[in-house]
Amino acid sequence: MSKKISLKDIAEAVGVSTALVSYVLNDKDEQTRVNKDTAKRIREMAKEMNYQPNQIAKSLKSGKSQAIGLLVADISNPFFGNLARAIEDEAKKHGYSVLFGSSDENLENSQRLIDTFINRQIDGFIIAPAEGTASQLEYLKKANIPFVLIDRYFKDLETSYVVIDNFNATYQATQLLLNQGHTKVAYVCYKNQLQHTEDRYSGYLQALLDHGNAEDSNLICEVEFNNAAYFREQFIELLQPDRGVDAILFSTNTLSIMGLKIINELNITVPDDLAVFCFDESEAYDLFYCPISYVKQPLSMIGKEAVKILLEQLRGKASSEQKVMLDVEIVARKSCQK
Amino acid sequence: MSKKISLKDIAEAVGVSTALVSYVLNDKDEQTRVNKDTAKRIREMAKEMNYQPNQIAKSLKSGKSQAIGLLVADISNPFFGNLARAIEDEAKKHGYSVLFGSSDENLENSQRLIDTFINRQIDGFIIAPAEGTASQLEYLKKANIPFVLIDRYFKDLETSYVVIDNFNATYQATQLLLNQGHTKVAYVCYKNQLQHTEDRYSGYLQALLDHGNAEDSNLICEVEFNNAAYFREQFIELLQPDRGVDAILFSTNTLSIMGLKIINELNITVPDDLAVFCFDESEAYDLFYCPISYVKQPLSMIGKEAVKILLEQLRGKASSEQKVMLDVEIVARKSCQK
Repeated sequence: MSKKISLKDIAEAVGVSTALVSYVLNDKDEQTRVNKDTAKRIREMAKEMNYQPNQIAKSLKSGKSQAIGLLVADISNPFFGNLARAIEDEAKKHGYSVLFGSSDENLENSQRLIDTFINRQIDGFIIAPAEGTASQLEYLKKANIPFVLIDRYFKDLETSYVVIDNFNATYQATQLLLNQGHTKVAYVCYKNQLQHTEDRYSGYLQALLDHGNAEDSNLICEVEFNNAAYFREQFIELLQPDRGVDAILFSTNTLSIMGLKIINELNITVPDDLAVFCFDESEAYDLFYCPISYVKQPLSMIGKEAVKILLEQLRGKASSEQKVMLDVEIVARKSCQK
Repeated sequence: MSKKISLKDIAEAVGVSTALVSYVLNDKDEQTRVNKDTAKRIREMAKEMNYQPNQIAKSLKSGKSQAIGLLVADISNPFFGNLARAIEDEAKKHGYSVLFGSSDENLENSQRLIDTFINRQIDGFIIAPAEGTASQLEYLKKANIPFVLIDRYFKDLETSYVVIDNFNATYQATQLLLNQGHTKVAYVCYKNQLQHTEDRYSGYLQALLDHGNAEDSNLICEVEFNNAAYFREQFIELLQPDRGVDAILFSTNTLSIMGLKIINELNITVPDDLAVFCFDESEAYDLFYCPISYVKQPLSMIGKEAVKILLEQLRGKASSEQKVMLDVEIVARKSCQK
């Protein structure tokens, strides 16, 4: 790499003082003080030499710049890709760029990305926090770095967040399956300590109980994240005839897709042999031979609210943490019929 | 937001000079010069007060930091989400974080993101350039900012890039359809000036010609980006019986998904009524009632090569532009059969 062009280089090329170059290029009120032709020559030379103003130094001085850091759990998951897009569209309206980072549900990655963003003077964060990152968020709080959580939150941590009503989402989907006449509604979920995982399970369970059904461990398929082989084994087990499952509620998009693939492999017909209800949107739901029912999250509303709350924090207008819980849309189609 | 803790604040709290605090916290060889207890008190106070070292200033000084800026065309497109993930996995092995930006195929967004990244002292770029951004890349070249293009490149611009052999990809897919006995193989593509769009079309055309078929405008469905209504109209027109189309090659994943949805709506059976060959991977291809044939891009290899080339540039080991063209995998399944 060649040397970066400095104000001094330009000054030497034009034959004026470095101070004068700085004065002109920093857009000070030069009219009254600097000879117009000299100012013009300086600007032309700066352009010719490809001078690149040191914005970081400027940013340091003002302590502010216009970018939001968005931390998602996995950028290859279409849910986060679409959510990132929604946040970007909203941030753009307010003159903010969005830089993304992806933690891959990993504590260390999350910390490294937070550091990387902070070191680059990001204005604030929107974060879909990975499991166990509460202490990282506490650090941000203590350091007075503005942030808003999305998708997930921690019960014991006072933060602003925008999430969906997860309890109600699975409650409604389960209730719908039961009201269609399905008697053994199974539930497929990840095994983790995240609040939304817990809330979704509680919603499913409450719907069962309210319908007069008992909790039944034979109906639960709880699997580890990023372990396709284990999922396969557990899911096929769930579908064994002796379990009598006649409907399944998947609690995430990735579980939905993996499950549908195995259902196809086993030549199980939806909804005749088995009703299914999925979570989040997917290109695949519309292209399945039987249109798939799903819980639709209000992505653009999540993006809108998260950016709004963060901007209020950035502008010093936020008096306290803001907690937003949005309703989902229940898209019931052929796959959930009896 | 409360005031950021400065070295001076710590100095006052401990009762020493600011210079001494700077000396200790910047990890200078303090053993010989600073009283051990004082150094310890300073470090403890810095921790207690949540002092956050100004990494930007450090970064400014050294001129280096460990992050790659990745600019993709649309983060909500699963192709870019998966590619971003591949690049991230590879960069991580070399101690680099990846920050993403998404241009939405828009010139201004692209420039704004490039500026935002540069202002934040990103080490180098990996870019899937939007149409018409050649001048932005020329600027990066002149400014000696290391970058590597992926997915797309500009014929007239000398840059390093990692792309697939697009000509050969569509050539092989078309040839396969023709060899299966399909006589009217249609081609669905975007209307733009991007090199890979042109290369893919040339591959399709050459396969037709080599098979003794003539170029036929009735077999081409060329649509604008981000215009679903226009696509719908043009695609339904392509499927009219008088055109006699018996096979379709889609040249991108987004076109594939939109097309398959309309094929379903019109109750056209794949492959009995119509054979289809898609591009890139999608969750939907496996879940379609008839397994979809597709052109599979070597995403992790693209990520690996792009990171490798960029790191060579960053380490000053790159003597000239490196151009890598990778082969695709042709995944032929039931959807392309006669």
